[in-house]
This record gives sequence, structure tokens and C-alpha cells, in this order.
Amino acid sequence: MNRSSPLLTDYYQLTMMQGYFHCGLNNRRACFDIFFRRPPFNSGFTLTAGLENAIGFLRNLKFGPEELEYLRENGSFSAEFLEYLAGMRFTADVWAAPEGTVVFPLEPIMRIMGPLDQLQLVESALLNIINFQTLVATKAARICLEAGQDNVMEFGLRRAQGFDGAMSATRAAYIGGCAATSNVAAARKLGIPAKGTHAHAWVTAFPGELEAFREFVNLYPDNSILLVDTYDTLKSGVPNAIKVAREMESRGQKLIGIRLDSGDLAFLSIEARRMLDEAGLAAVKIMCSSELDEHIIHDLRIQGARIDAYGVGTRLVTAEGDPSLTGVYKMAAMETDDGQWRMTMKKAEGLKKSTLPGVKQVYRLHEKTGEMMADLVELEGATPDFTRPVKGVHPVIDGAQKVYEDIGHVEQLLAPVMKNGEVVADPPELGVIRARARDQLARLHPTMRRLLNPHEYKVSLGPKLYAAAKKMRESTV
Amino acid sequence: MNRSSPLLTDYYQLTMMQGYFHCGLNNRRACFDIFFRRPPFNSGFTLTAGLENAIGFLRNLKFGPEELEYLRENGSFSAEFLEYLAGMRFTADVWAAPEGTVVFPLEPIMRIMGPLDQLQLVESALLNIINFQTLVATKAARICLEAGQDNVMEFGLRRAQGFDGAMSATRAAYIGGCAATSNVAAARKLGIPAKGTHAHAWVTAFPGELEAFREFVNLYPDNSILLVDTYDTLKSGVPNAIKVAREMESRGQKLIGIRLDSGDLAFLSIEARRMLDEAGLAAVKIMCSSELDEHIIHDLRIQGARIDAYGVGTRLVTAEGDPSLTGVYKMAAMETDDGQWRMTMKKAEGLKKSTLPGVKQVYRLHEKTGEMMADLVELEGATPDFTRPVKGVHPVIDGAQKVYEDIGHVEQLLAPVMKNGEVVADPPELGVIRARARDQLARLHPTMRRLLNPHEYKVSLGPKLYAAAKKMRESTV
Repeated sequence: MNRSSPLLTDYYQLTMMQGYFHCGLNNRRACFDIFFRRPPFNSGFTLTAGLENAIGFLRNLKFGPEELEYLRENGSFSAEFLEYLAGMRFTADVWAAPEGTVVFPLEPIMRIMGPLDQLQLVESALLNIINFQTLVATKAARICLEAGQDNVMEFGLRRAQGFDGAMSATRAAYIGGCAATSNVAAARKLGIPAKGTHAHAWVTAFPGELEAFREFVNLYPDNSILLVDTYDTLKSGVPNAIKVAREMESRGQKLIGIRLDSGDLAFLSIEARRMLDEAGLAAVKIMCSSELDEHIIHDLRIQGARIDAYGVGTRLVTAEGDPSLTGVYKMAAMETDDGQWRMTMKKAEGLKKSTLPGVKQVYRLHEKTGEMMADLVELEGATPDFTRPVKGVHPVIDGAQKVYEDIGHVEQLLAPVMKNGEVVADPPELGVIRARARDQLARLHPTMRRLLNPHEYKVSLGPKLYAAAKKMRESTV
Repeated sequence: MNRSSPLLTDYYQLTMMQGYFHCGLNNRRACFDIFFRRPPFNSGFTLTAGLENAIGFLRNLKFGPEELEYLRENGSFSAEFLEYLAGMRFTADVWAAPEGTVVFPLEPIMRIMGPLDQLQLVESALLNIINFQTLVATKAARICLEAGQDNVMEFGLRRAQGFDGAMSATRAAYIGGCAATSNVAAARKLGIPAKGTHAHAWVTAFPGELEAFREFVNLYPDNSILLVDTYDTLKSGVPNAIKVAREMESRGQKLIGIRLDSGDLAFLSIEARRMLDEAGLAAVKIMCSSELDEHIIHDLRIQGARIDAYGVGTRLVTAEGDPSLTGVYKMAAMETDDGQWRMTMKKAEGLKKSTLPGVKQVYRLHEKTGEMMADLVELEGATPDFTRPVKGVHPVIDGAQKVYEDIGHVEQLLAPVMKNGEVVADPPELGVIRARARDQLARLHPTMRRLLNPHEYKVSLGPKLYAAAKKMRESTV
């Protein structure tokens, strides 16, 4: 499959495109936003990821002969339209929050302006990429905040939702703070560390556990982490690991660690730590895996578990608890017959489900200490004077207002990444994105990073946007 | 990325392979099983899918020069081992339950016998493919059982976990009973119907909803399903759709349907049905979408919602509620130094978490009516005499027994699919797999198909397997 195939779209996008073509609306310029209405996992923050992949998709977008032939055989598309598709390239402007940015419900995280039909075509693929990577980056950040920096390895390949599910989850997990992955193909593609220990099969491949451990550390003294739960963790695995550690010491080597992969990890890690310490092996680390997530790690720490590193797989890469980000892509404005911009809005279900009309920017206001204060969504060009108190209106509770004062640095979250379909600048290195994510999380008030019922970060509408939305809501169509 | 890249593996598989190579165990034959310990969604059944893709992966497995160069640069692999990898092809035997088979916890659904190192290498990719497609096929079957046959379209591309997550979810959803997909690339690849209606953007692209509807049905009279919730479903959308339906009638055309995508679907579908019926439009169908799953559809039907077809996306393709199948891949036997087979077992945590040792077959016993009676897992070659009463032992409750009598047809679930790495027979067409799934579900007692607390299907161990497992559990290693 061509990874930039324009057929990675929903069928209705193609029928709508043909409709626009026959109504003469195909080249009419429009503006669409990507945003989400609630954070995943009831998280106090959401961490963006996937932009580089989304841009890669857009820049290579092109209908090939086989794809056009498939559409011709489908029978619903005219020869004239198919010929038009054959010449189509992506020529729109894309503005987006950089990867590794902390974002919040209702504010646009990506804004795309260009010919209506191109914008329709790319919806499904953009949402697929941005929704999933943002979801996993957020999950990874939550897990890493609980586990401590650089203590989490991503182990999810075997339970991921397809190979891409694995590959893009590895990328997003690294952005969110994971230190390494077990997925060799992803490590190679992304240039990040590949890590691993050994499996139960290694142990069962030898007549006994002790022999299996000895062979392993002989081969890999520098990666000597022994999985101790194949037969009986405390009666067999840990004692055998201690025996092997002493044998290594007599050769001037050191056992790096043991891994627990089943059972009660709080109990087993405390007991294993005690046994290792009593054997004079305080430097031997304890690594744990086994259906871990942010809640279990939080709980293990409260219980005093003695765990130095975590292998996290299934629940990270499938975003257990909330396996999809409900990001949507909605039209916010469109050119009229006479070349003016008309704001557009979906308003079926009251304020919370309405969309925000118009071409918008997100201003992130910081305290003078550098901590994030609030985000203000306003119409592009209607930039408030941030040297004075700025009024913001609640996006959902009609009329509720807030005045922001003593504003420090103001960042415009949406920055240009493509102009007329051309990439504006090389994407940042993955390590730079990961560092941005860490910096962003540090700028959030700690109560917004907690797992349960986090303090809500403020997102307000600027006065111009609020007035426009109010007027449109009150009009009839 | 090469879709059959041997680097689609966990790093520890490669280090273990090198370990086997240096210990002279690499060509020792072993047997691994894939099985799972609990059904997803607390379902009464699990529907297998993904075998064709798994076989495709295995048959093309080969280390290319760039992959070997990456491993060389990694620094942990010897030149001798890398040269060995360069010549490696998959030469094992694979037996598996056909796709579209209803299966149950603890029984092997795939059995792989061959050189230990190859079997280690392919674990991660096999589990990735089989776990996810089996999960989604099961979810789709649950949804289609509630929605009624051929009434569900899969709409999940934009919320799927990566492009493969989408592509393989579409395949599995079709096996599980969905009638069509919105994903054009998947429809093309799989040769299944692509379907769709239109989006809110179509409506907002025109100055008014009525004009948008008129243009749409003019272009697509044969696919005239109108999305009626952009502004106000009952005050604007449905009345405009009725107006357009009447205009179509005056031209000798018929409006196919309307689609509801938000709000209270029970209320709105009942009211819309009433309005359509009062307008003499009883033939106009009502389609619904909006975060649907088996539970919501079940509930809508209980409430008397008037819905003819369902578009199901997010919760189907991400397997909401249980986003991973906990399928595992465990060694069951291995050749000894002197060419005998030795059974192996992981037994750390009591009966429920122990593995079943030995090379096994699964016998599916049917009633004489054709209904499924029970599955019996037994050592290969120890086939019971099914013309007489057959004893089965409970796989978890130690010593609990059951005698099966009046046995009708007996099917061996595991059938050969690869021999010495060569495919034994062409895989069945997707439509054949889908039909098998439907037949399998029909053979289950209805109480095993219900959503909540389904009746548990019996899986027993044959006497020889039970005796072998008991002996190994009681031995010390």
C-alpha cells in the first residue's frame, strides 16, 4: 500500500469532491480546523503528536493510475472528474501546534486553508494520524509522570493495533517520555534505542532455570537482566539470579537486574529487593512488566514497591481506558461567490457541540514565572493587546467571563508548516519534540498533571470570536 | 517499511536468537502455541481472524542487507550470527484454526513447529496480527448480532490506531459481519463494497441546507442519503429532506434515506420516522451513526428506536471496552539433545496462569443437531474414541470432570496451513471466511451469544494431556 494513497479516505469524501466539482465549488477556498471536545483519560492535558507524519502524507498526495482505474471501475465517478483528480496535488496552507505541545479541548490544534475539495479529501487520513499519535503521546506522558523520568520502556508491538499501530505508538510514546522501545523496526526508523531482556521461552529452552540464566549472562553480561518468574519467583527465580550474580562477581562482572512479569508486583518487588540486599546485591535493579499503566504504577509507588524501571506495553500502545481521541475536522469558513470569507458553523446540539466559526489563532498566555496561565482563542487578525488586562469568555457556559492580567510571554500556538502545499521548514528532530513535551508539561501547574480529577486549564474565547459565534448561533439557516 | 520485515520483532527475540545460535540450540525443533486466557469484552465467544496476513508475513520473511547493516551497527550481534541471519528463511510447520472460527480461552488457535530461533523471531509479529484482527472480528460479530444481518457499515478510518489499524480492522469487521466499509483503500485491497453518505461540510459549503440537499440528490439519486443534523434535526433537517423527497418523487425518483449523527438517537429516530410516515415516505430509511457499539444498539432496540442501518466506527475499529486481545505465544515442547520431544510449561502462578504442555490438537464436539457441544484439547496422536462417551477434565478447576456422550460430528480445529515454510493451500476468499463465521455463530447456543454474562462454552482437557500437565506441575525444576 502506498503510504500516501489518496484512497486512504472515506468514500463520501470522494463523492462530495465530485459534487463540489460539478457544482463549481471545488476550487472555492475553505478553512477547516482539527480539535477535540474532551481530553482522553479525563487527563488534565493532551500532548500533540503526529504532525510530521501528517505533513509527509500531504506532501506526497497524488492519485496514481491504479487508484484512478479503481475509481473508474467503481462506476460512480465521471471521466471528467477522474481526469481532474489525476492532476490534483495538495496546494493548501497548513498551520499547526508543534508536536509535543500541551493542548486543550475546543481549541484548534491544526488549521488548513485551501481548495475545498482537497481539504475534504485529506480529512480521514489527517484525523487517523493526529488522533492516534496524540492519544498515545498523552498516555505515555501520564505513565512517565508516574514512573519518573527515563524509567519507562515501551514493549507494545505484540498487542498493538496493527504494525502501524505499533510503529506510530512507538514514536508517540517516545515523544511522551519513554526512554526506549522493544520494537526493532521502529527503533531503526526513528533512530531511538532498542532494548529488551529475555522471554520465558529462553528459560524453558534449557533443562533448568539456573543453566538458562548462566548462558544468558555469559552471552550478554552488559545486558544481564534475568526474567525470574518462569517457575517460582521467590523460591527459584530470585535465588538462581543471586547465584548467577555471585558467579559474575567472581569474574569481575555485575548482574544488571532482574525482571518480574507476573504476580503481585508490590509484594514480589519488596521481597526480591530484600533478598538481593541481604545477598549484598543492592546495585542489582528490579524491572517490572505485566499489564502496567499509569494507575497501577501510581498504586505500586504508594504501596512502597521497589521498582527501578518499567516495561509498559499493551495499555500504553492501545491507550487502554480511552482507545481513541475524538478529534474532529470541521469547516470554519468558506469563500463566497464574490471572494469574501463567510464563517461557517455546525450548531445542532447547543453550545458544547457547536463548532467555533472563522479563521482562528490560539494565544497561549503565560504567567511572568513562565507557568502557563490560559489559552485564548480569537479570530485571526483580532490580536488583543496583551500588555493590558484581556477579557476572555467561557467557551461553553454562555456569558461567563474572565479577565487575564499580568500576562508574561504570549505564544501563538498555530504556526505555519505548509504554504501552497510546500513544507515551510524541516520538521524538528524527535529528540527536540520530546524535550518540548517535557518542557511543556513542566509549565503546567502540578494539579493539572495529576491522574484523577485534574484541575482544569482555562481556555477562553476572545471577544471578537465570541461575538461572531453568538450572532451565528442566533441566526436561522 | 517492508511489510514482512523480520525487524518487526522485539529486540529480545534477536538477542535470544543469537544466544541459541551460540549455544547450538538454534536448529533444535520446538513447538509454540498461540492462545488467550480470557475472551475480550467478557464475550461468550471469540472469532479468529488474521491468519492470511500472518501467513503472508511468514512466507516473505527475509533479512535484507539494510536490516543486517542496522543490526551490525547496533554492536550486539556477531558477524557469524549476522551471516547466518542473511541466509535464514521461514521453514516451520504451521497449524491453525481457520479464520472465522469461534474459539475459546486456553485452547491453542495456532501451533508452530520448527527451528527454535525462527519460532522466537516471529512471535511479536504473529501476535500483533492475530491478536488485533481476532479482537475486531469478535467486536464486529457482537455488534452485528445486535444490529441484525447486513445492517452495519464500518466507518472507522479516522479514529483507527494507524493506517494498518484501519486496514486490518476493516478486514476483520467484514469477517465479523459488517456489510461494507467507508475506507476506500481497504475496500479496494479487499474487494469489498465502499459506501458512504455525505458530511456536515457538504451542508455548510452551501448557503443553506435545502440547497445542499437538492444538489446532493441531483448528483447522487441512487445514493441519496441525507445527513439531517447540521443545524436542527427535527426543525430543519428532516423537513428539508421531506421537501427534497417530494421533489424527487415528482421526477420519478426516490429518496433512499436520512442519516442521524448526533443527539438522542432513540427519540430522534422515532420522531423522524413519524414525520416521514406522515409525509407518505414510509420507504425512506433511517440510518444512524455517532459513537455506536453493541451495547448502545442493544439499548436503542429495546427503546423501540426506528433505525434501519448503522454506521459504526470508533468503537468497532479500536475495540472499545477491551482494546487488546491478551493472546500469548508459549513454548509447549522442545527437542532434546537425543532427538526426543520434551514437553515444556510455564507454571509460575497456579493452574490458571500455567501453560498447557505438549503438541496438542483441539477436537470440537458437536451435538447430533449440529450445535457445538464442547471442545476437547488433547495431545496430538492421543485421539479419543468419540463413538463412545469421552471424559474431559476442567482446565482450571483441578480434578473437575465431565463426560461427553451422544457426540455427533467431530472437527479437528487445528489444520495444516504451512509445511516446511511452504503454504499448503491457497487461503479462502474473504466471503468464504465471512460465511464460516456466520455459520459458526449460528451453531452456538443463543445464551452464549448474549452480551452480558453469557453462558460459558465448555473447554476440557483430554485424559492424556491432563495427566502430562499434572505430572509437570508437581515436579520441581
